[in-house]
Amino acid sequence: VADLTIDLALIGFGHVGRRFVRLLEERQAWLAGRYGFSPRVVAIATGRHGHTISPTGLDALRAADDIEQGRDFDSCERRVKPADSERIIRAAAAARPTGRPFVVVETTPLDIATGRPAVDHVRAALEAGAHVITANKGPAAFAYRELTELADSLGLLFRFESAVMDGIPLFNMARETLKAVRVNGFRGVVNSTTNHILSAMDKGEAYDAALAEMQTAGIAETDPSLDVDGWDAAAKTAALANVLLDAGITPHDVTRRGIAAITSADIRSARDRGRRVKLVASGARTAGGVTTKVAPEELPTEDHLARLDGMANALEISTDLLGTIVVTQLEGGLTQTAYGLLSDLIEVAGRIK
Amino acid sequence: VADLTIDLALIGFGHVGRRFVRLLEERQAWLAGRYGFSPRVVAIATGRHGHTISPTGLDALRAADDIEQGRDFDSCERRVKPADSERIIRAAAAARPTGRPFVVVETTPLDIATGRPAVDHVRAALEAGAHVITANKGPAAFAYRELTELADSLGLLFRFESAVMDGIPLFNMARETLKAVRVNGFRGVVNSTTNHILSAMDKGEAYDAALAEMQTAGIAETDPSLDVDGWDAAAKTAALANVLLDAGITPHDVTRRGIAAITSADIRSARDRGRRVKLVASGARTAGGVTTKVAPEELPTEDHLARLDGMANALEISTDLLGTIVVTQLEGGLTQTAYGLLSDLIEVAGRIK
Repeated sequence: VADLTIDLALIGFGHVGRRFVRLLEERQAWLAGRYGFSPRVVAIATGRHGHTISPTGLDALRAADDIEQGRDFDSCERRVKPADSERIIRAAAAARPTGRPFVVVETTPLDIATGRPAVDHVRAALEAGAHVITANKGPAAFAYRELTELADSLGLLFRFESAVMDGIPLFNMARETLKAVRVNGFRGVVNSTTNHILSAMDKGEAYDAALAEMQTAGIAETDPSLDVDGWDAAAKTAALANVLLDAGITPHDVTRRGIAAITSADIRSARDRGRRVKLVASGARTAGGVTTKVAPEELPTEDHLARLDGMANALEISTDLLGTIVVTQLEGGLTQTAYGLLSDLIEVAGRIK
Repeated sequence: VADLTIDLALIGFGHVGRRFVRLLEERQAWLAGRYGFSPRVVAIATGRHGHTISPTGLDALRAADDIEQGRDFDSCERRVKPADSERIIRAAAAARPTGRPFVVVETTPLDIATGRPAVDHVRAALEAGAHVITANKGPAAFAYRELTELADSLGLLFRFESAVMDGIPLFNMARETLKAVRVNGFRGVVNSTTNHILSAMDKGEAYDAALAEMQTAGIAETDPSLDVDGWDAAAKTAALANVLLDAGITPHDVTRRGIAAITSADIRSARDRGRRVKLVASGARTAGGVTTKVAPEELPTEDHLARLDGMANALEISTDLLGTIVVTQLEGGLTQTAYGLLSDLIEVAGRIK
């Protein structure tokens, strides 16, 4: 039996947020037995279906079903605006007994122009005394240093394992297991939609058809330019550079070229020369600071990144003592992203204890 | 300035042990500043050059130079026998002030028949109140469960990150970052010597010449049958299965076939069919328990493992929630192995604090 209850406020309750609460339910006994805690959802704020707060805990599974069946929350304020989410965080924090551990789970969509409102949600949550876990790339891509310093100063954790390569432990690996090495750079394929499109074009499919498939599957961003213009990859690159290389940049500082101009003829021509076209994200320490880039590249087939087909992602990390380590994700998706949040929550629980 | 001194006894002082003390020296300021501890070597036991104990600390760099220049330790008892290493561990423990943190660093060679004396060293060290870090595969491959339970019961750590893929964080990754997933199996290329030989034969070189190269480079085991007959891979497989799958096995339980019977004709024939021959180590949960195997396999070139050339190693880990993760090491060697020990030491320091 768990000796610790951790209250959760879910800011954003889309596919990832709902998969997360179901994963919590599936792993409930296991979390209690192995990690000694029980999560309890006390607030949910959505973008379009209102919000609900219950300091003694609410039925998150029912809430997920309600949303999926088109039912708004009873307390419904339609179209909760960003500023309202900050208010909901503060209200949820204030309604709880003092001293009970509190975690805000941020899963709102990325706004690539500013990283907001996610950055504001994280800041408001920390200021309200909550640990924060987020699947949103924005906070680490736009404000990693500020938010990490704020969290540290308050003795709170700010975690975002899911932001790159879903739940594959990249940030935790760097933090927990590469303690005595210096990372000199990284290089990877980190956007599944563009990789699927390039792989499909390589097999003779048309660009538009391949993109449409990813939109139907719910993998592509609603606004496809976030994927095909390299913005999603640039946000991940900024997050990686901020964490691994202490870059202090935003996605707008990443030299960026997407795949929109790539034609089937380009891909065939590359293939004829024994090469594959991939959207490569990279960052490196240089004499002048940290340089970062997202661009399509022709890679020789011996290159690990050249062989990533479809939804596979990979990141090469170059270090001083360990040489180059490659972490490859063969399958990605919603469950993996939700798992990343769960892994962050377990880390928070360990800190609380 | 470090507020914590950690005493180290080095059991085994070959290439890895000596690289480790030099790495400690190189990173001294950094360990003190970032992790708040200073390591101090208080005992060294070698297989052929005697031993030395100094409760107030000894000059490990000078000791490394001495050994390399063929000078035995002053206190020299020639050819310290295994039982003597246990005695040295107890003597070093007894000579120290009570309560000072103590870590035994085990780097003796693997004995594939029994895992001893390394298993005995680890047991003796734990019983003497020392945390243990080891680059030797034997303890995790032959006695993981016993030694882990003993360490747990005494509030001590038993760590062996270097045992598989040098310092690449496999065991730490599983422990620290895969907390909420179940590992269902693994599959990898984990022996550099055989992989180099197979790669070289694939390029037209002869088996004997390729093996001789690895012996000259100090990569192959002194007894080449440990590599080519698959024993090294079997020991790593047992360690992985014991840790990731709770198998409770020894290397002798691994179904094993080496590469000695592989001919250049086999490799050419595979290549003609678009395939590559690799020595694959694997383990999986099955209805009847855990099955483990080391054997040469013909892999299609799309397989991640097929493309590992020369010294590259990789391990695929299959999980319930995260799908398949692949960790690839492009470069391996002595520094990476020594780094694995350092990474274990940092973990021990964290526990002590």
